[in-house]
Amino acid sequence: MDFLFSFDKFQKQRAMQSSPKQSGQRQLYLWLRESILAGRLLPNSRMPGSRSLAQELNIARNSVIYAYEQLTTEGLLHILGRATFVAQLTATPRVEPAAPINSSQHLAARAELYPWPTEPKGTFTAFMPGVPALAEFPLQQWRRCITRAWRQVTLQQLDYSDPAGELTLRSAIAHHLTSTRGVICTHEQIFITDGTQQSLELCAQIFSDSGANLWLENPAYGGAVHAFHKAGLTLRGIDVDAQGIAPTIADWRDAPPKLIYTTPSHQFPLGSVMSLERRMDLIQMAQQNKALIIEDDYDSEFRRNGPPLAAMQGLIANAPVIYLGTFSKTMFPALRIGFMVIPTGLTQMVDKHIQQGYLRGRSAEQLALADFIQRGQFATHLRTMRRVYALRRDALVAAINQHLAVYSDQHISEAALVKGIYVQPLSKLALGTNHYNGLILGYAQIPEGEMDTYIQILAKIIHATLSR
Amino acid sequence: MDFLFSFDKFQKQRAMQSSPKQSGQRQLYLWLRESILAGRLLPNSRMPGSRSLAQELNIARNSVIYAYEQLTTEGLLHILGRATFVAQLTATPRVEPAAPINSSQHLAARAELYPWPTEPKGTFTAFMPGVPALAEFPLQQWRRCITRAWRQVTLQQLDYSDPAGELTLRSAIAHHLTSTRGVICTHEQIFITDGTQQSLELCAQIFSDSGANLWLENPAYGGAVHAFHKAGLTLRGIDVDAQGIAPTIADWRDAPPKLIYTTPSHQFPLGSVMSLERRMDLIQMAQQNKALIIEDDYDSEFRRNGPPLAAMQGLIANAPVIYLGTFSKTMFPALRIGFMVIPTGLTQMVDKHIQQGYLRGRSAEQLALADFIQRGQFATHLRTMRRVYALRRDALVAAINQHLAVYSDQHISEAALVKGIYVQPLSKLALGTNHYNGLILGYAQIPEGEMDTYIQILAKIIHATLSR
Repeated sequence: MDFLFSFDKFQKQRAMQSSPKQSGQRQLYLWLRESILAGRLLPNSRMPGSRSLAQELNIARNSVIYAYEQLTTEGLLHILGRATFVAQLTATPRVEPAAPINSSQHLAARAELYPWPTEPKGTFTAFMPGVPALAEFPLQQWRRCITRAWRQVTLQQLDYSDPAGELTLRSAIAHHLTSTRGVICTHEQIFITDGTQQSLELCAQIFSDSGANLWLENPAYGGAVHAFHKAGLTLRGIDVDAQGIAPTIADWRDAPPKLIYTTPSHQFPLGSVMSLERRMDLIQMAQQNKALIIEDDYDSEFRRNGPPLAAMQGLIANAPVIYLGTFSKTMFPALRIGFMVIPTGLTQMVDKHIQQGYLRGRSAEQLALADFIQRGQFATHLRTMRRVYALRRDALVAAINQHLAVYSDQHISEAALVKGIYVQPLSKLALGTNHYNGLILGYAQIPEGEMDTYIQILAKIIHATLSR
Repeated sequence: MDFLFSFDKFQKQRAMQSSPKQSGQRQLYLWLRESILAGRLLPNSRMPGSRSLAQELNIARNSVIYAYEQLTTEGLLHILGRATFVAQLTATPRVEPAAPINSSQHLAARAELYPWPTEPKGTFTAFMPGVPALAEFPLQQWRRCITRAWRQVTLQQLDYSDPAGELTLRSAIAHHLTSTRGVICTHEQIFITDGTQQSLELCAQIFSDSGANLWLENPAYGGAVHAFHKAGLTLRGIDVDAQGIAPTIADWRDAPPKLIYTTPSHQFPLGSVMSLERRMDLIQMAQQNKALIIEDDYDSEFRRNGPPLAAMQGLIANAPVIYLGTFSKTMFPALRIGFMVIPTGLTQMVDKHIQQGYLRGRSAEQLALADFIQRGQFATHLRTMRRVYALRRDALVAAINQHLAVYSDQHISEAALVKGIYVQPLSKLALGTNHYNGLILGYAQIPEGEMDTYIQILAKIIHATLSR
């Protein structure tokens, strides 16, 4: 039978294959499919019975049945009575298997591949910035909130939900912000996002067009640079001094901004706090220039030196400020919940915009978070963490003073990563002419008792690097 | 005492205020803050004791204590011994409360506000497309998966995780796709996203630059139009016929695409299935033009007319196809988990790109979904839903044939919404010259027994609209 003859090739190919990882049924399935698509198995020809083909090929009969079923599902075989036939395809396929796709043909210029080493994720590496002390998180309490939320979730809450977020969570956040951060807002101004990254993208998308001037602090948070770059904005790094972002008269004259991105409570990465005078100046100049200020308050809950200044957003009524918050630091990063506080005059257009382009769901997670806040567990956790972080910070400063005097930047970061320590190089976050050289040490994850050990390891790496 | 004198104003303002919603403590807090910031309360002046001020103002002493504490937290008051003083601010504030921000000054041209009515979300409205039959979802089984996942979650899984997604979920998806959809892939090609919307944004961002030609079916899924428009691509609508997307020689010559967006298994919204011939043609032409095809397989699990054709992605090895899938239809929309299958030659650069710009977490939800798939509950649910949807579809067709003959579009959609029915107007999804006029009826949520009732309501609306 001419038809069966071609299966010889299958046998030979199978015997010769270098990677015998695939099961017999998978091999047969792929072989048959290719043969049908390439026209080697003619349309309407009858396939051998599963029992006889299995014997012929010396494979299990179930493997043949599986392959036949699969190809029938895909429309390449069809069953008539008890017999199986090759389908009559409307096309004469002409496409042969191609070589793997060459990435250089397809990578967009804007899909930046920075030279920086990839930051480790999902593993503990000492001094990774931006990661809270996960071991201190009250996971039991949170599990109970999650379980309660899933128990209470309604069928309609399995559907897409309001892109602005669940009302109970928006209310809980509004209450928290007005009572602890001096933010002036109602729940109608709160818009839930998947985190600050999405908040930044939304701000860029709604409030600025491609090519518009955006100011940001130099050095700045890499995620912000990425979001604004992606949105096609013209980025202008404004130097930071001890009082925070310090735009000059020339900056205002030469490149008046549409948006100003700033971290006034705790500048990332340099740590300075924007003075009240500078805040007032910035608000006033923004008003005059019809610019909006994006106040990223990512870390204010944990300020260490003295009491936190109130948010810029609440310094005056109707300040031209979009306040951004996140639960990645106060709860845990995997939660992926953040929010924006939008000025009252702009809420309607933000709402209109997100209603047509953004999909949201995750009602259960949002309700669990609202529950966690309303039960006071969030406030309790914040108090605990302030104590934990104060101890860790003191231990860090003491260990640095003892073991480290001078250090360099990029090489140290690379050498440290080999030892399971990630110190983010400061130069990575600087825009334009690079005059920053330093290491950012996230200490939240390291118990104070272990701080000395890690700094000693880091010191050895630094000394080794310097002596080379 | 000159100092206390100014509180008279507070009393008067309080008595006169038109919206007496705010509590006494909130009013006092806001009043004091404004007075300090405006310089009416002089730096270093001593505040009255809480008891005497409460008597003076005739409000609760706790309200005064609250306001003092809050302003101390914000750095506007400070405590020395048992007395409270106005802080010495470095700035002389000059900014007065502003009028609400005018949205027209800030809205970007690209933040499109379409004229279409907002689609209802989070409430049942008959015929909403793209929403599955949520009442049939095995919520109990899913709750158990969620509870198990949260019980097993490790501390490191509370951290940011690999932006490509959890390995177990990627493996479960790869296995499901190869065995049911004819997709050729390993888990290394699977990238988890927050849903198809994010998948589309990533494709546009990584594989095309601003201004590049993108083809999409006309009419097309609105979310795709939004994503590509946002990415600055030049959109070209390609007409769809009974065999699917039908580009002409002139299309290939005049506007060769960088990306082609298509829904071959079940064209949205017209429902046609791309023929095998058309698929082969498209792959061949894409190869010649160094274009990538985005195959959005959002709905293939529920094809109604005959067996589904295998995915384009697996028609030949190394096809220039990015396969997109979502769990919004097969599980539930609020889950917010989708995925991309990237050609082997491109996985490395996709991985590199997302490692530096995208944050992911939600490990517990991903693990719960992997668990749900691995236990076979996903496959069982799919089988159940195929039966449910087949019954509902038959009931819909029967009811339409009985009650509706001709109909129109936009006006009917608006009129129907008033009655709790959302029929998406087809003209909303058409690009350029609008020659589509129709209604899209999502029937998944409506038990077949109720179909007749809803169609009768819709028929009345249509008849009323036509007779006007």
